[in-house]
Amino acid sequence: MNITLTLPDWVNQEIEKYPKHILMQEERMKLVIRLSQLNFVNKTGGPFAAAVFERDSGKIVSIGVNRVVPLNCSSAHAEVVALSMAQNKLQTFDLGSQEMPAHELVVNWRPCAMCYGAVLWSGVRSLVIAGSDDAVEKITGFDEGPIHPDWIDEFKKRGIDVLDNVLRDEACAVFREFAESGSPVYNGRGGDTES
Amino acid sequence: MNITLTLPDWVNQEIEKYPKHILMQEERMKLVIRLSQLNFVNKTGGPFAAAVFERDSGKIVSIGVNRVVPLNCSSAHAEVVALSMAQNKLQTFDLGSQEMPAHELVVNWRPCAMCYGAVLWSGVRSLVIAGSDDAVEKITGFDEGPIHPDWIDEFKKRGIDVLDNVLRDEACAVFREFAESGSPVYNGRGGDTES
Repeated sequence: MNITLTLPDWVNQEIEKYPKHILMQEERMKLVIRLSQLNFVNKTGGPFAAAVFERDSGKIVSIGVNRVVPLNCSSAHAEVVALSMAQNKLQTFDLGSQEMPAHELVVNWRPCAMCYGAVLWSGVRSLVIAGSDDAVEKITGFDEGPIHPDWIDEFKKRGIDVLDNVLRDEACAVFREFAESGSPVYNGRGGDTES
Repeated sequence: MNITLTLPDWVNQEIEKYPKHILMQEERMKLVIRLSQLNFVNKTGGPFAAAVFERDSGKIVSIGVNRVVPLNCSSAHAEVVALSMAQNKLQTFDLGSQEMPAHELVVNWRPCAMCYGAVLWSGVRSLVIAGSDDAVEKITGFDEGPIHPDWIDEFKKRGIDVLDNVLRDEACAVFREFAESGSPVYNGRGGDTES
């Protein structure tokens, strides 16, 4: 038995509208937020997207969107998908190896408890996020899970820089749009939840 | 572009030697420890294995082994592979949904920072591990990452029971065998490590 992770068909069409290199981090985030919106509007997953860039050149290496429900895979969060796609494309399990340029992951919110570790092991040297407080949990009902209390410092200890609050309002606007759409929120352990 | 996670060919042959249901948790762990050993001996990944069982009937639902290096995928830890395989087989993103029996994940050590979250989101109701202290890091050099300090309590809050120290000595014997074999240890961020 094999597991296959795929991106929705609309991703390629959308990406063709953008330049192949995006230098400014706000522009990188703008792309990611747009993908997070298209993902739930197209009913291809939850309102989360991620992209791996060459940190300095801005070259787009890979895209990921949340695919949990369509692929029946609770690990198919946007970050895991984007990082796996980048590693597959570059044929390495370590995006931080000495032979290649530094890589950056851009995501439309802070990593959940799982994606925190996935970022650590991926080899990326920087993480750009739209926000890190409990706004997403409050707006959408998604559970981010128990992350290490000093998670940003622990990233830094391992050579990963974090840039927070990039286009926070724009990201939250999409989360609100998602919440108002009545789309499903899945946190696992459906048998235990009361709603 | 797609990502495909596969198990090594030897896994099916090995599993055929075992009954389809394994009732005792020590016997479940014995299988997992054997798979962790075969994985590095066969050079198909690191010394980690996992299996999903129906908790009460003991039915084997899925197997996972570490596939990071062979598949160039830093997220392909044994737990993520086993949980994804189980969800694919049962066609659900939630192994804890009300329509199905409770599921248990058995692993030959505590989850790393990433797999901790992966277990949370999977829907399993119990986790059986061979140990949870720093023995693996000391013996093998693998980095487990910054997990939440109260990770066992946080599991319990979310309805996941943890049974620790099941066949600890047997698991550590395999880690020592791995360390003595001179097999590679990969923690990501190869550019930053000094060794």
